[in-house]
Amino acid sequence: MTTQSKTGTLDRIEHVAISVRDIPSAVAWYTNTLRCKVAYQDASWALLDFDNLQLALVIPEQHPPHIAVTRPGAQSFGPLAAHRDGTRSTYVSDPAGNSVEIMAAD
Amino acid sequence: MTTQSKTGTLDRIEHVAISVRDIPSAVAWYTNTLRCKVAYQDASWALLDFDNLQLALVIPEQHPPHIAVTRPGAQSFGPLAAHRDGTRSTYVSDPAGNSVEIMAAD
Repeated sequence: MTTQSKTGTLDRIEHVAISVRDIPSAVAWYTNTLRCKVAYQDASWALLDFDNLQLALVIPEQHPPHIAVTRPGAQSFGPLAAHRDGTRSTYVSDPAGNSVEIMAAD
Repeated sequence: MTTQSKTGTLDRIEHVAISVRDIPSAVAWYTNTLRCKVAYQDASWALLDFDNLQLALVIPEQHPPHIAVTRPGAQSFGPLAAHRDGTRSTYVSDPAGNSVEIMAAD
């Protein structure tokens, strides 16, 4: 999903991914506890819609926890890999080792 | 900061906090790598403005990594603690142990 920046001057955080042990129980907890809705769910990950961004729940074997930023020129950060949902991205790490996914804006 | 939901039906994620080892080097990396700006910074944490939410960089001794949701009725999740910036919140944990901060909307 690509969403136009409201300001054009700051990057948009497209989704945030956090690790969970079990997708069904995590999805049940989030949808029962908070006002969000399931955009996608399978055995290895789920994507929840919140008002201003998407929260991905992932099992650790599938993806690292990360934040994902959509931006023009994503390829300048590294070779882009194509994903099942049609997005293209590369991962970089901050100085503490946190993963940041740089998603192509087009 | 309280921001009105665009839809009224889904909760807004106000900020996401991730752990870093050193605030100045993390702030330098994020502001040099991505289009964001520093809303607050001290020795133990920093708050970065992105287009659609705020990213908090925290040292592990200060706060756990967490997502923060603003919602009416936050007190139903537990006693609210007042913070230095005027917000009031409580913390709950998802089934995997991830911290979720429930912030009062008023």
